[in-house]
Amino acid sequence: MTTDPAYRQETSREWFESLRDRVCTAFEKIEDDLAGPALELVGDTPAGRFQRSTWTRDSSGNSGSTGSDDIGGGGVVSIMRGRVFEKVGVNVSTVKGQFTDEFARHMPGAGEDPRFWASGISLVAHLQSPLAPAVHMNTRQIVTTKSWFGGGADITPMFPKSKEAGADAACFHAALKSVCDGADPAYYQKYKSWCDEYFYLPHRGESRGLGGIFYDNLDSGDWDADFAFTKSVGDAFLDCYPQLVAGRMGAAWTEAQRHQQLVRRGRYVEFNLLYDRGTQFGLKTGGNTEAILMSMPPQAIWP
Amino acid sequence: MTTDPAYRQETSREWFESLRDRVCTAFEKIEDDLAGPALELVGDTPAGRFQRSTWTRDSSGNSGSTGSDDIGGGGVVSIMRGRVFEKVGVNVSTVKGQFTDEFARHMPGAGEDPRFWASGISLVAHLQSPLAPAVHMNTRQIVTTKSWFGGGADITPMFPKSKEAGADAACFHAALKSVCDGADPAYYQKYKSWCDEYFYLPHRGESRGLGGIFYDNLDSGDWDADFAFTKSVGDAFLDCYPQLVAGRMGAAWTEAQRHQQLVRRGRYVEFNLLYDRGTQFGLKTGGNTEAILMSMPPQAIWP
Repeated sequence: MTTDPAYRQETSREWFESLRDRVCTAFEKIEDDLAGPALELVGDTPAGRFQRSTWTRDSSGNSGSTGSDDIGGGGVVSIMRGRVFEKVGVNVSTVKGQFTDEFARHMPGAGEDPRFWASGISLVAHLQSPLAPAVHMNTRQIVTTKSWFGGGADITPMFPKSKEAGADAACFHAALKSVCDGADPAYYQKYKSWCDEYFYLPHRGESRGLGGIFYDNLDSGDWDADFAFTKSVGDAFLDCYPQLVAGRMGAAWTEAQRHQQLVRRGRYVEFNLLYDRGTQFGLKTGGNTEAILMSMPPQAIWP
Repeated sequence: MTTDPAYRQETSREWFESLRDRVCTAFEKIEDDLAGPALELVGDTPAGRFQRSTWTRDSSGNSGSTGSDDIGGGGVVSIMRGRVFEKVGVNVSTVKGQFTDEFARHMPGAGEDPRFWASGISLVAHLQSPLAPAVHMNTRQIVTTKSWFGGGADITPMFPKSKEAGADAACFHAALKSVCDGADPAYYQKYKSWCDEYFYLPHRGESRGLGGIFYDNLDSGDWDADFAFTKSVGDAFLDCYPQLVAGRMGAAWTEAQRHQQLVRRGRYVEFNLLYDRGTQFGLKTGGNTEAILMSMPPQAIWP
């Protein structure tokens, strides 16, 4: 039955939503588990819980009620403001619509028929502790007259040259390498390089963080294999990142470290608004602003 | 002698630099004059003074030493972090170079010869007090095989619907209307509308602030008149804005008002990085990053 497009769409949608649920559960447990000197630093901030809000996409491409069978869908934004996760957003969305002429020219399979269907999960976490890495993870399936997967995950320590950041990044990279190697021996180098190239701020001459993997247009001809790879990226993220946070979250930090964290967050803002294709495309084509900009850090400085 | 291009360039450059000096003097006086409940709120922050740093443009378009007679110049960034002006940057720059092919197609007079000369002043002020308006002012002369002026000024109160913001905006608009009307009865409506259209965030469905004027490609055929108008915009800014700040800076503000200010600053960041043509062009063509991003607020939140 996996050759039926409707079955495949339903299956991938369900996966993105179930991954969201497991991530939220894991992150809420971390909120409960906080111990150590950090507890004093966050004061009386209670253990966080995710709050969900639903948005729908109307026929004009804006949020609102659905007007046409060909254009619609929507998503659910889950946001938690906690004592470990200063702000973490997880958006799952499933939408259908038509690409504009200009966009259709650049999308596989959209030249003759601009209709598309897309479903995915996107997550960005900004932590209270400057000693714990921020993170981004996103996987999605897009269907035009073709069908493909894309996504990735990358880690952004606040002190990228520290040995702790190096250790966290090594663990993160190893987890992603393992799932890449399980799918295709060529994937890891290709997707790691793609990530390093993508998450780069040319005007600063610096990388956003310490990388991970980035992939797009994945259509190997074996949908089941591509979907299995996409699922394994999400599983690897869920296995690895909460452990990294748990290992860093309890330690005390200084005002100077917090200052540096807020500077790095300014760079994060610069990347997302200046260069991130998803952000630019979403905001300029009537996407849901709150869902797209959930990636913004809770606070940033340009001292 | 004002028909000599070299004389005109030297004259406008001197004007931008002298305006910078007068603005800095006026803003430092405001720092000294702070009195009232706000003094307690800013704690032991001393009266600010501008710090200047010089940058040069090399033949690759990046900062560094000048490599060619046709490409070069640079600028001076003056930044003050004070007790009234939380962060204010004033950049004056005079550069020459060659537009890229793509850019040359869109610039008057650059189609046949891509060389350009440009000089200008750009100012952005973010205030400590949420009750005082942020402001932006910029004027410039650009020379290709043609020559024109551009610029404007716009005001961004943190509570745009308050009667105080309305009064500040009315005063600001009246000052700009006066100089527009002194030059051409058609200017004010045209340049006010241009400003309202330009400083708009479509993804938020909101304006950046309460507007002002925005003009570009001003070449009426009378260089002296166009230069006089550009000077009068700078003079009007200098007459009006420091008075507005002086009238608002001393009052006490609440934590809730400060919170709202930081939210509005997030919107300011969104506008500048997503939509501001000067910022996007500058950062993507090897402009001086520190000079361009002096417009970023010292602190912003996305709660």
